[in-house]
Amino acid sequence: MTLFDEPPRSETASEQDDHRVRVKLIVAYDGSGFHGFAANHGVTTVAGTLEQALETVTQSRVSLTAAGRTDRGVHAWGQVVSVDLPADVNLSEMQHAVNRICRGSIVVRDASVADHEFDARFSASSRVYRYTIVNRPAPDPLVASTAWWVEQPLDVRSMQLACDPLIGEHDFSTFCRRPKSAAGDEHSLVRRVIDAQWTVSESERTALLRFQIEAKAFCQQMVRSIVGTMVDVGSGRKRAGEVAAILRAGNRSLAGHIAPPHGLCLWEVHY
Amino acid sequence: MTLFDEPPRSETASEQDDHRVRVKLIVAYDGSGFHGFAANHGVTTVAGTLEQALETVTQSRVSLTAAGRTDRGVHAWGQVVSVDLPADVNLSEMQHAVNRICRGSIVVRDASVADHEFDARFSASSRVYRYTIVNRPAPDPLVASTAWWVEQPLDVRSMQLACDPLIGEHDFSTFCRRPKSAAGDEHSLVRRVIDAQWTVSESERTALLRFQIEAKAFCQQMVRSIVGTMVDVGSGRKRAGEVAAILRAGNRSLAGHIAPPHGLCLWEVHY
Repeated sequence: MTLFDEPPRSETASEQDDHRVRVKLIVAYDGSGFHGFAANHGVTTVAGTLEQALETVTQSRVSLTAAGRTDRGVHAWGQVVSVDLPADVNLSEMQHAVNRICRGSIVVRDASVADHEFDARFSASSRVYRYTIVNRPAPDPLVASTAWWVEQPLDVRSMQLACDPLIGEHDFSTFCRRPKSAAGDEHSLVRRVIDAQWTVSESERTALLRFQIEAKAFCQQMVRSIVGTMVDVGSGRKRAGEVAAILRAGNRSLAGHIAPPHGLCLWEVHY
Repeated sequence: MTLFDEPPRSETASEQDDHRVRVKLIVAYDGSGFHGFAANHGVTTVAGTLEQALETVTQSRVSLTAAGRTDRGVHAWGQVVSVDLPADVNLSEMQHAVNRICRGSIVVRDASVADHEFDARFSASSRVYRYTIVNRPAPDPLVASTAWWVEQPLDVRSMQLACDPLIGEHDFSTFCRRPKSAAGDEHSLVRRVIDAQWTVSESERTALLRFQIEAKAFCQQMVRSIVGTMVDVGSGRKRAGEVAAILRAGNRSLAGHIAPPHGLCLWEVHY
């Protein structure tokens, strides 16, 4: 279990039998109240809470597979989960019951029957993450839980320029936390970035800078580490032209600080 | 102390002396973490927290006056506060220090010297409140702390029609909590509404319905009670044409349920 978005296939698939149906859920959550995504004994996690709600509602053992295991504090709007449920489940009633149990902290936005082959993690063709920055002299308490407040003025044009070298297939060692594993193991941190861009969304209240990045898969802390580096570029601590060399160097100490988790959101997953 | 936005003048004004300067603060806060606005022993309030931070920073006793005493759970983007501070205060440093102490839950957006006559409450010519509704089949966890989730589809056109009878000077007894006071007291709940309207702001994620209402002053729970009634209109439980009669009746039981506080925000105050 080494790569962030692509660990070995879980046992869920083999539990599939004729009395169960594979279900695809689209799930949103506010990551603030959870100790990360993956079920973990003794702490409240997104997967643990959702599995428990699904078990209560379906009165059966449930084990889910997700498109992306978001880190502690990271939000999701379009997390995708595959799960086998009893074949006689009424999806609409299940959805409402799960949402009632989770009381708004996790929301099943959509539930549909999927092919037996469907696997939220392995069937995904790409993931889209968004990172939001509120860039103003004083913080905005009304977006404090979903946007990173950066005080110093950021030059979005340079940050946009700094996106270019990231597009395509590269070794992202510079921007990734190397997975914990037995000494000597080699793990590829090569990933293919399909698109990366900054947009400014002006609300009446606050200008929000939004970074959107799409890749087949991501390694751990990759988006937050890229955003931290981009903010160094936007504030003039690094030049946009340096990013290509920083990426090639494969040296984590050259990247910027890792941006905090609460600005990050798993936006959607494509299949 | 009877009216929501206009209680008798506090003693702050009389404390004014030559060694103090009157300061106008524009203040934003997330109301979720506070037991309302007004300082209250033993519980964490917006005014109590802000006064304490100002006292720590200026090393002097501080007593503030605010444009609107928001209820528990209500947010503010443009609350205005007047306060007398030592004449040698450096406003920019004070602002930064207070924001550091309040750690993002309360943010002083602007601090400026005001006339000795300036009183955040009595000098105000009007207040603008906003109420946000997220209207979709499932809740949106990423706006759960600042928008009221209404599940049943709302007809915004009827809700807009229902605004018309509110404009102008009326007795708002139907929509207001009658202030606690000695028996037999008569309190006017006549208020002048300058503007009231609904807009739909389509984000990529969620359609937000926004109610904006401006009045010289409001009585307690007025906006939330009006919003509750409007939602009854939007969902078909009441007709837009009934609102004029409901307003005239002066009978609270005819109004809709009071909308929850977390959708409400004191948006700005005009002087």
